[in-house]
Amino acid sequence: MDRFEPNLRIPGPTALPPTVREAGARQMINHRGPEFAAMLGRILEGMKPYFGTTSDVAMISSAGSGGLEAAIVNTLSPGDRVLGVSIGSFGDRFAKIATVYGADVTRLDAEWGYAAAPDEVRERLRSMPEVKAVLLTHNETSTGVMNPIADLAAAVREERPDALILVDSVSGLGAVPFHMDDWGVDLVVTGSQKAWMAAPGLAMIAASARGWAAMETARMPRFYLDLRAHRDAATNGQTPFTPAIAVVYQVDEGLRLMAAEGADHIFARHEACAAAARAGLVALGFELFADQRYASRTVTAANVPDDLDWKAFNAEIKSRGVVLAGGQGKLTGKIFRLGHLGSVTLEEILGALSTLEVAALTLGRPVEPGAAVGAAQRAALATAGIAALSVTGAGA
Amino acid sequence: MDRFEPNLRIPGPTALPPTVREAGARQMINHRGPEFAAMLGRILEGMKPYFGTTSDVAMISSAGSGGLEAAIVNTLSPGDRVLGVSIGSFGDRFAKIATVYGADVTRLDAEWGYAAAPDEVRERLRSMPEVKAVLLTHNETSTGVMNPIADLAAAVREERPDALILVDSVSGLGAVPFHMDDWGVDLVVTGSQKAWMAAPGLAMIAASARGWAAMETARMPRFYLDLRAHRDAATNGQTPFTPAIAVVYQVDEGLRLMAAEGADHIFARHEACAAAARAGLVALGFELFADQRYASRTVTAANVPDDLDWKAFNAEIKSRGVVLAGGQGKLTGKIFRLGHLGSVTLEEILGALSTLEVAALTLGRPVEPGAAVGAAQRAALATAGIAALSVTGAGA
Repeated sequence: MDRFEPNLRIPGPTALPPTVREAGARQMINHRGPEFAAMLGRILEGMKPYFGTTSDVAMISSAGSGGLEAAIVNTLSPGDRVLGVSIGSFGDRFAKIATVYGADVTRLDAEWGYAAAPDEVRERLRSMPEVKAVLLTHNETSTGVMNPIADLAAAVREERPDALILVDSVSGLGAVPFHMDDWGVDLVVTGSQKAWMAAPGLAMIAASARGWAAMETARMPRFYLDLRAHRDAATNGQTPFTPAIAVVYQVDEGLRLMAAEGADHIFARHEACAAAARAGLVALGFELFADQRYASRTVTAANVPDDLDWKAFNAEIKSRGVVLAGGQGKLTGKIFRLGHLGSVTLEEILGALSTLEVAALTLGRPVEPGAAVGAAQRAALATAGIAALSVTGAGA
Repeated sequence: MDRFEPNLRIPGPTALPPTVREAGARQMINHRGPEFAAMLGRILEGMKPYFGTTSDVAMISSAGSGGLEAAIVNTLSPGDRVLGVSIGSFGDRFAKIATVYGADVTRLDAEWGYAAAPDEVRERLRSMPEVKAVLLTHNETSTGVMNPIADLAAAVREERPDALILVDSVSGLGAVPFHMDDWGVDLVVTGSQKAWMAAPGLAMIAASARGWAAMETARMPRFYLDLRAHRDAATNGQTPFTPAIAVVYQVDEGLRLMAAEGADHIFARHEACAAAARAGLVALGFELFADQRYASRTVTAANVPDDLDWKAFNAEIKSRGVVLAGGQGKLTGKIFRLGHLGSVTLEEILGALSTLEVAALTLGRPVEPGAAVGAAQRAALATAGIAALSVTGAGA
């Protein structure tokens, strides 16, 4: 298979466009010099419209989980009351970080596969008058559910106007519209290896005025993840610690491609690819794991049927160059996930579905050749944005 | 200048060899798959001889400073008594991190430019019977001083056999011999952008049996930097959080080049380049900043003479493609630094010195053309390892 590039259909890292790959091969530069400063400035400014903010953005060299930790330790103090709303593995992680650092965390868990309910959040907050922060996951990568952040934030604001709203959008931001200023969200975390089409290694974090103000009094210990240090260094075009320069090159190039494509087109492309993935999997006989009212636009999870030998099926798919993700944590062996974010094209989704069809046929499952691809094609065409999909690539 | 590659003579990030650059452009893979597992295994095993250990090595996606924070928070508890031995900016940082996380830090500061004295460490420890850890910097990047870690560790062991010895070797390891097991060192941190010839973004940390044991009871909060989580995930060929894959590719390739060159040759090359840098700068009329008994083999610092317009001089040098580093912190404007680590060759050092000569001549300073290069050449030839320098590159 070495002469073919695999169709990497995991929910991040996403495949890199050619010019992003090339950017990763650039020679090192002085990270205290003007070339780096210009690049950092472009990235921090270029990210703002995707966050939907006019406030400051910070960039730290870490995985998305380092960004989640930064969200917690920069805004909270030990003993602070926190509502951790979890709908899956990454919501659990967000709440766990707060617990590790000494916050007093109350959990509100939705059944995995479902979104959080604004009414339940409001209800829970009613008995938490002293709540300091609410933790929300935008796109839950482990279940393929996208929370209605606008509605959830409105519920929080209504009940507890002063609570901080901290949002994990590692795998959502940049692929779907987000308006943190309008929604009253205080802090949002994203990661380079998702919608931004770059390698992993950078987390970008935006905070509202309230979010930045909270950092002045928050007492959880922090040094490497200190966001104020990052913001202050950025005013001089620098980072407080040596940044992951190769990944910075890639994010810079990814943002250039995204600007060339245009946000509306990017969002429409993700919508069409998500619709195709869902319809195709259903046509193949799979049951989708997530409540479809809140189906993610960046990753689709499907149940592994009882009568399917998943290992044999996945080996068949892999041998044909398509890489899927299995389930995480308690969903290991129970679901599989197909990622459609970043540089994804409709053709890649249809291609992956065609390979799943062939694999199913090879295993003797009752599948009509082309049916899943046809269903996917029709679903994509039915999305609002499909008319805008004049190119298949990630833009010029 | 765009058609020339600059001679990047800062003390990290170092210039990347061609195949390391190419590795940074590879397509993403599933970081939960077998290809990544094989690569991670190669790196963690391949690093051990440079650490001088048979114990486990962990790899985290962060700058070197994230590695220093990991050293502190994984082994210590709030209130622990710590001796922070500092000989410069990075020693200060190491001690500061411990303070931020609630350790009770006693400082032992050497005058900048000097190494730490084993007798003074022993003396200070005499009055600290309850000391839990001693923080040491191996190579102090800010001053160009390399501490005698073997002697310092012996002094600690003599006075306080049970104290943890935590060492920052971000910019030393891989460029000079290090024997943590033999020296009784408990934890060592290094960074991908130094001797390892890769982009920044990964920190590698080795711990002794005592170091790993300390993590079982240490109570400072940690999540992203939890080394036990990294060690445990590595037994399955994974990292607990999405790793900086592009940098992992580069470190893997850097280690391959290092194995091809051989450790003895690498160490001899650094010794020869360091000798050349020092002799050349002296011949150019500069006073070296560091106590030459403990001069670093990876970076040389020189005083900015009172009669030199540093900005004009540096602009002249930059316009000719050589990138130097200025002073940090309280040394800003007082010294400049010339890096010679990672993929550095003797030719690059002689080239940089020739450019400094030309710049000095351009500014009307009394310099004899070729004198600095000649002095540097002679110094390099006089080093023990020069006979082994049969190639100028970083190996095949």
